[in-house]
Amino acid sequence: MDIITSSSNQRVKDWKKLSQKKARIKQEKYMLDGWHLVKEAILFDQPISEILVTQDFKHRNELEVPDNVEVIEISDNVAKHLSETPSPQGIFAVVNLPENAEEKPEKATGAWLFLDGVQDPGNIGTMVRTADACGFSGVVFGEGCADMFQPKVVRAMQGSQFHLKLCSGNLIEWAKEFKQRKLPVFGSELNDQARSYDQVGRHSDFALVMGNEGNGMSEKLLKETSLNLYIPIKGHAESLNVAVAAGILMFGLME
Amino acid sequence: MDIITSSSNQRVKDWKKLSQKKARIKQEKYMLDGWHLVKEAILFDQPISEILVTQDFKHRNELEVPDNVEVIEISDNVAKHLSETPSPQGIFAVVNLPENAEEKPEKATGAWLFLDGVQDPGNIGTMVRTADACGFSGVVFGEGCADMFQPKVVRAMQGSQFHLKLCSGNLIEWAKEFKQRKLPVFGSELNDQARSYDQVGRHSDFALVMGNEGNGMSEKLLKETSLNLYIPIKGHAESLNVAVAAGILMFGLME
Repeated sequence: MDIITSSSNQRVKDWKKLSQKKARIKQEKYMLDGWHLVKEAILFDQPISEILVTQDFKHRNELEVPDNVEVIEISDNVAKHLSETPSPQGIFAVVNLPENAEEKPEKATGAWLFLDGVQDPGNIGTMVRTADACGFSGVVFGEGCADMFQPKVVRAMQGSQFHLKLCSGNLIEWAKEFKQRKLPVFGSELNDQARSYDQVGRHSDFALVMGNEGNGMSEKLLKETSLNLYIPIKGHAESLNVAVAAGILMFGLME
Repeated sequence: MDIITSSSNQRVKDWKKLSQKKARIKQEKYMLDGWHLVKEAILFDQPISEILVTQDFKHRNELEVPDNVEVIEISDNVAKHLSETPSPQGIFAVVNLPENAEEKPEKATGAWLFLDGVQDPGNIGTMVRTADACGFSGVVFGEGCADMFQPKVVRAMQGSQFHLKLCSGNLIEWAKEFKQRKLPVFGSELNDQARSYDQVGRHSDFALVMGNEGNGMSEKLLKETSLNLYIPIKGHAESLNVAVAAGILMFGLME
């Protein structure tokens, strides 16, 4: 097998560009970095186009590559060049972007997390991972959110994108549709009508909205919620980290 | 007022060094970066030695400096040099390290979070903030944790270090003492005897142990817990982020 050793190799350049949204859209691909993510992608039959691996990659013997996937050997330097972590494990997969499954709110069942302008990639990825662990059906990325296939989001999701549905959508429309179907849309903003999250029972089909780290939910979407929930703060902290709050709410609401 | 405009000024050099643990211990000080943290420190009567502020600092008019605190003007460049964020707000406070309050487990009341080898500064800071919001009395940093006054921990704590007790300690001793006083010490590790966190009732005086991100709790400490708790995972995620898990457990256990 040939080894790619130069960062100026055209394929390396193309992979490197996948850290940018524009290139991801153009190439219709994104990158997984690290053994756990690559394993998950293989296990969940993801459309992998190439696997990149260094000679020293530790788990090389365990790597079971699906038939139609090209395996390319890269040097440690190329691995370092491609990775956003200081000590890459030496394994990457290039995966086709999922076709926007065009999830329809009319047909959505189960619990859904709506992200309204959430910007920190680590928070977003952690919330997707938590939604997965809590048995949610999917996550809808509304306007103003960081891109779901940005490297830092992908790292924090830890492969949960293979386990539940992720889609971009108009949250106002999603909220209206849920309400029309008599499914509760829980906002997370403290207002006069807000109720403590542990006083509203447990649910199987519902939506939970998490807002922007600094500014909370948008005014317009706030009007479309069925009820706003708060987490009672007992100490002197002004607020909770959005991903922590989302975890408390999801596990508190889910039947 | 004189303005410090050079990063090679000796005082600037000393402040800059406060990002290192060794220098924090030597100078017995640590640094707050940003308006929210400085405001909290003033509000909660912290032992501030100096406040550093740029000419352009936005909230300058609102800054009410306690009598005995020296205010020093710095240039934008010095602010950038001192800050670990790309766009510093232009306000810093240098604060004396709290004397190790020598919290004694024999006298501890309320709920306590034990951190066993937690290494990510963001996770640590977020857990301290969540413990504050949940009304915990304090956090004990066991062996192998990142330093509590490291800049990234301080940023994530968002001032919660002024609201509850933080101390370093031997967690084995803390756990033994709690158990001797018949206070439950809840571990967070899945084993045969582990119980779901929502099946053990709510408590006012107890300890909750969170372990290392990759390896969980240490074997030795695991033997000293009264009961191990788990969070039921419904999807395909292998685990939760440690700070999210801590939030779910704290709010689920606290009376």
